[in-house]
This record gives sequence, C-alpha cells and structure tokens, in this order.
Amino acid sequence: MLTRRYPISITEAQAKINNVALPTVTETIPVAEANHRVLAETVTAPFAYPHFRRSGVDGFAIRHADDHDYPHEFKVVGNVPAGATFHQRLGQDEAVRIMTGADVPVDAGVVVMLEKTRDLDDHHINIVVPEKHSNITEIGEEYQAGDVLIEKDTELNPGGLAGLTALGVQRVNVYRQPRVAVITTGSELMAADEPVQEGKIYNSNGILIPELVRENGGIVTSVEQLVDDNDLLQASLQKAIAENDIVITDGGVSVGDFDFIGDTARQADELLFNKIKQRPGSVTTAFVQDQTLVMALSGNPGACYTGFYLYVEPLLRRFVHQATRLQKVTSRLAAPYHKTNGFDRILRATYTVEDGQYATYPNGPDRSGALSNLQTTTCLIKIPHSNQPIALNAEVETWLLPFK
Amino acid sequence: MLTRRYPISITEAQAKINNVALPTVTETIPVAEANHRVLAETVTAPFAYPHFRRSGVDGFAIRHADDHDYPHEFKVVGNVPAGATFHQRLGQDEAVRIMTGADVPVDAGVVVMLEKTRDLDDHHINIVVPEKHSNITEIGEEYQAGDVLIEKDTELNPGGLAGLTALGVQRVNVYRQPRVAVITTGSELMAADEPVQEGKIYNSNGILIPELVRENGGIVTSVEQLVDDNDLLQASLQKAIAENDIVITDGGVSVGDFDFIGDTARQADELLFNKIKQRPGSVTTAFVQDQTLVMALSGNPGACYTGFYLYVEPLLRRFVHQATRLQKVTSRLAAPYHKTNGFDRILRATYTVEDGQYATYPNGPDRSGALSNLQTTTCLIKIPHSNQPIALNAEVETWLLPFK
Repeated sequence: MLTRRYPISITEAQAKINNVALPTVTETIPVAEANHRVLAETVTAPFAYPHFRRSGVDGFAIRHADDHDYPHEFKVVGNVPAGATFHQRLGQDEAVRIMTGADVPVDAGVVVMLEKTRDLDDHHINIVVPEKHSNITEIGEEYQAGDVLIEKDTELNPGGLAGLTALGVQRVNVYRQPRVAVITTGSELMAADEPVQEGKIYNSNGILIPELVRENGGIVTSVEQLVDDNDLLQASLQKAIAENDIVITDGGVSVGDFDFIGDTARQADELLFNKIKQRPGSVTTAFVQDQTLVMALSGNPGACYTGFYLYVEPLLRRFVHQATRLQKVTSRLAAPYHKTNGFDRILRATYTVEDGQYATYPNGPDRSGALSNLQTTTCLIKIPHSNQPIALNAEVETWLLPFK
Repeated sequence: MLTRRYPISITEAQAKINNVALPTVTETIPVAEANHRVLAETVTAPFAYPHFRRSGVDGFAIRHADDHDYPHEFKVVGNVPAGATFHQRLGQDEAVRIMTGADVPVDAGVVVMLEKTRDLDDHHINIVVPEKHSNITEIGEEYQAGDVLIEKDTELNPGGLAGLTALGVQRVNVYRQPRVAVITTGSELMAADEPVQEGKIYNSNGILIPELVRENGGIVTSVEQLVDDNDLLQASLQKAIAENDIVITDGGVSVGDFDFIGDTARQADELLFNKIKQRPGSVTTAFVQDQTLVMALSGNPGACYTGFYLYVEPLLRRFVHQATRLQKVTSRLAAPYHKTNGFDRILRATYTVEDGQYATYPNGPDRSGALSNLQTTTCLIKIPHSNQPIALNAEVETWLLPFK
C-alpha cells in the first residue's frame, strides 16, 4: 500500500518543472483584444509617425520668412480644421487658421498660438508676440517607417495598444494562453449548491484554482469534481491531457487507499517528482504525459494555495515567455514562530516595507487545512527545516504574491 | 471665442473630484463571479468550521484511553473514507481506518498516521510509535458560527472566494462597478479599419481609455467616435449621462472653434474645473450633470494618459470604496531635465528601486502628442513649475502606476 517516495527540495522541484519543454504556440488576434497578452513577434512601424506635419496648437500657420517684426499683420487665406488639409502655397504675410492636430500647410514654418493673436477684421489678424518654438511636429518625428514599435516578448498594456492603433496596426501575433483543465477529486466534496452534510466539505479548491489560473493568464477549459473512483479519474485525466497544455489535479495525491494520482504519476511518460521537502504540500506531484504537464496539488486548501504559487504560476507565465510575477525578496521575520520541522515550512504571511526593508508576519493558522488566511495573505515565507525554532528577526526567503 | 479660464492646482483638481458625492450602489452576485469585486457587506460564518471533527492524516483513529504502551495492537472495526461517517462507539483497543479529511468517530481522541502502523492481519494492526498531536481539527477551530469571514469594503481575491465557498456562501453583496461611457471626438479621427489619410490620425485614445477603464474596475458601456459636430456631441453626451455613472470625453476641450466641451461644461449643473496648472492636459475639464460626473480629457495621447491616472483611476476606485492603486512615493530624478514651465509638468517616466529609494528617469519624449512611451511608462513624476530648470537628483513627487 505504501510506496516509498524520494523527496526533493523546493528549489529542485521548481527547476524540474522549469526544465520541461513547453511548446511555443502563437495566434493572431485583434489589438482590441490584446491587453496583457504577450507579443510573439516584434512589431514595426508601417509608416512614419506622424505621417503629416502636425500642429501642436490652435492658431495661425505662417511662413518662416514672415516670422519677424512683431506686432505683425497677416491676411487670413484659409482654415484647416483638424482632419482637413490645405494644399495652396502661402504668400507673403499670409496666414492660415489651423487647429491643434491639423495638417500644417507645406510651406508654413511656424504655428502661432491663438492667444498671441488679435482679430483685426474677418480676413486679417495681428500677431502680437512671436513664438519661441515652431509648434509643429515634423513627419516621422516619433517613428520612421520600419522602426520598432514594441519588441517581441513584451506584455502589452493599454498604452501599447494605443501606440499600435495609432500606427494602423490592427492585429498582433501573440503567444496563445495556456489551456488548463482543473480536476478536483474526493468523495467528501460537496458542490456549492448542496445542503451541508456531516463528513463532507464544500469544494473550495474548485474555485480557488480556476480563479488563480485565470488571474495569472491561463484559460480554464474545464473544472471537474470527481468522487474517489479510479476509472472516473483516469477517463477525466486522459481527456484533459489530450485537450490541454496543463492539467491541475487536486486531492488524491497522498498515501491513502483512494490516492490514485500517485500510481498514475509513477506510470506516466516522465515523473518529475512525487514528494517535496516542504510543508504544507509535501505530496505535491508533477508528471508529464503525452507532452502535457500534470500538476497534482494537495487537496488541503493551504497546501493547494502554496503549491499553486510556487509551481503553477511560474509555469503559466513561462508558457507566454514571461518571468513569474512573484517577487522574491529577503525579509525579517517580525513575529515569533516556534514550530520546527524536518522539511522546509512555507508560511502564508503578510508584510510591511520600510526604507526597502521587508518585515513579515505569519498570517494566522499555518495548518495545511486552514483557509481563513488565504484572502489576507500577501506573501509566502520559508522557515528552513531545523530541529531548533527559528530566531525572531531571522532573515527568511520571501515571495511577494501578485494581484493582492 | 476665447473665454477666460481659471486654472487650479493638480491637488485642488483632485480634491474637487474627490468631493463629488458618489452613489453607493450594490448588487448580489455569485461568489464564482466575484473575483476582485468589493464586498458591500461583512460576511459571517453561517456554521462552525470545520463543522465536523476532521482527521488531518491518513491512518487509524483510536480512543485517548488506549493511547499508551507502544507498540500496541488494535482491532480494526471500521473504515471511514473521506466524505463518510462512522457512528458506532469504539471499544477498548479498537481502531478505525480513516482518511485525511474524514469525519473522526465521536469517541476517538487521536488519529495515528498510517506510516506509524503495521498490518498484522485483515482485522488487526500494530501501532508502532505514538503520535505527539491528536491530528484532529476540532469543530469550529477555524470559525464559530457568526464569526466574521471577510469584512465589508474588502476586495475579494481567489483565496477569499475559496474561504466563502468552504462556508457554503454562494452569493455576495458587492458594490456595483461604475458604468462608464467613452466619447472620443474629432473630425481628424480615423477608425482602425480605414486606410490611412493625410491630415487624419487613428483613434488611439479610443482604445487607450476603455482598456484603462476596464483594467481599473469600470464597465465600459459604449465607445463612440464623433466628428466635430456640436449637435452630435450633445445628443451623445445626453444619452451617456443618462445611462452611466461616469462619462469620459476625449478631445474638443481646448480653445478652438470646434471645442464644444468647454461651453457644455460651463452650462452644466456644476463645473468642477476647466483648467489645471499642469502640462500636458492643462485644459482637462470636469463637470457634474444630472449626478453624472463628466471627465473631459485632452485629445493628446500623453495628456489623456496622464489625465486618466491622476483624475479617473481614483474615481473608479472610490466608486467601489477603494483607495487608488497608484502608489505615491518620493523619488530622485536620476536623469537631467532642462525644460521650465509656468505650470507643473507631469512626465511619463520609469523607475528603479534600491534599498527602498526610488530613482526615476523621464521616459523619452514628453510632448503631449507623443505616444511611443505609453507602453513602457511605469510611473508619473511631477516637475514643479519654475523658471529655473530642476536640479539633477532633486526629489520629485511620483505616482507608481498599477498593472505595469
């Protein structure tokens, strides 16, 4: 019944997942749907930008040759509202009324702000004081045709989408988001709409995992809740592996009679690990089957939460060629913690920062089954394995969590 | 044509927006749709959690009275898989096989891990070494019925949704997200699918604003692109004001012939401001009409971007009772900047942080029309108005931007 497992360190487990080759899959999508997607190709400027000489102010365009001897009277020979053009040449002491953003007549050299002019009659103005600048943005001042707009492997944001749109780019080639199936197992699980029953628990990981996957850039293709039945599990796993990049299972990974994941992992194409020197979640298991990575998280909420951040988040990000969003820092353990453990213990914690120094505080109960601290946890900290309690104010490895 | 405007400081403009009363509107939604929504009511535990005595390990449950004299032989009288119950009393030296998470028999006091036991025959085991802990989570150890699960005004995250789900909470009362209409104006605007034309520009703010609104928690109900026509604008504005909490207009707010927003603002129920001592975006205007706040941003991309973060983001967050996500810090200006201005200048910038000290670098062109730096900007910095250039390494007010 008990099969020996060989535990590895957290760092080794992370490295093993990090060494699994991931496919590079790309797709071309509208710019309007690309916020926070990652470019799979560098995008270059299809034309110079601006593509016409653009007025930076509301006022009057005049020739360089007439830009002297103020106050200076001009005849108004035309009007260029934004979006319009003016193709006549300007004569001596001729001005054209022009709006901010409008196309500057080809032989105008300066646009004088409206505030520096006075109307004389319907067709004449007086320019009272000269401009220091031309107030004209020249063609190509921001980009020449062919210049890089945004580099490959950049996560787009609204500013980037605006830049692409300004240059007429309507579609972008981006990495496809990883497709993730979630399979929660356990005959003790109740669905959210069932009345509470003795011995059973609501399937909280069935919402925790999909929501974490979504906010970290994965597409959740299915969420299943299975009773402890190996045939059911194998059928679900097989389908999930065939249709997804990553499969996350939850529960059934320990050493009990209904822990079918352990056997499945041992028979897989490649078993990455089935024991980590870590609490909670020492039984966290990972394997590769038919090029799909299966992450088998512990069913305990705290272990599941910890396992997601340490092992799954970096994987989701690597799928789209991005680094983890967890920020690794060193912090000072600012509250006492007395337990000792033969394995490294990952505590859910909160932090403060002052002058760049992080102080961390274990966040309530650290039992793997506890879930009252999941909402308020903002970082994970590592209490190294030891037979002596860690000292107050000791430096500890810390992972600051994203989207908190 | 030119109407005098009275400029106020950035701080005053922010305070005026912050003083506008917002309605508190709530709605009840499924927990599964509530990630990053904000609770409008404190949620309490409907029952004690756990609601049954839960085994923390796979193993054998025994009475306290028999927990001595190891190795110790027990008769196995039952089996409690997860999700099941066992209602018999245990006799002397009787054990029940039990799984992690399962309901501990009422008179059992300890669950001994499987690893510390040996099978003797089909009905007998030997417990080799004793447990230090009971390995039982008692009823209500995490929550008593009526305990606070999550406080009002908390932004929910996946951990919180898991906690609510575990306690059988299926629906939550949250603040409704603000409904926002976006109206971009200007005859110079081309839609993304039009061929490029002289004198015209692609409507980049038409994607910038909605995407910024969405990622900061607003619901974009409509995005319009209007030519410069006051009747069209008034009709759109009227409808948008009637149907939304916030209306963002873009362009048409300056002093030119087609700048219809200025007049509309002056005739509104309450004009908050129509000039800010700020560049870019000095003409940024805000007014209240029929209890809807209208933010009129400058059409220049840089000014629009700056205006969104300084004035709109805090408003979207306040609508759901949350503080701005912009983090206000002081930074050292680590690269020279020579321009002077009678108004405060807000520069798009990037930052580094070392030992808690922020260093900021102006991010390329600071012209209001420039948009090549919108993707890479991670903070805004304020160069105070002065007739002397700011010193290198001067301390400057800095806003770190979210979701970058």
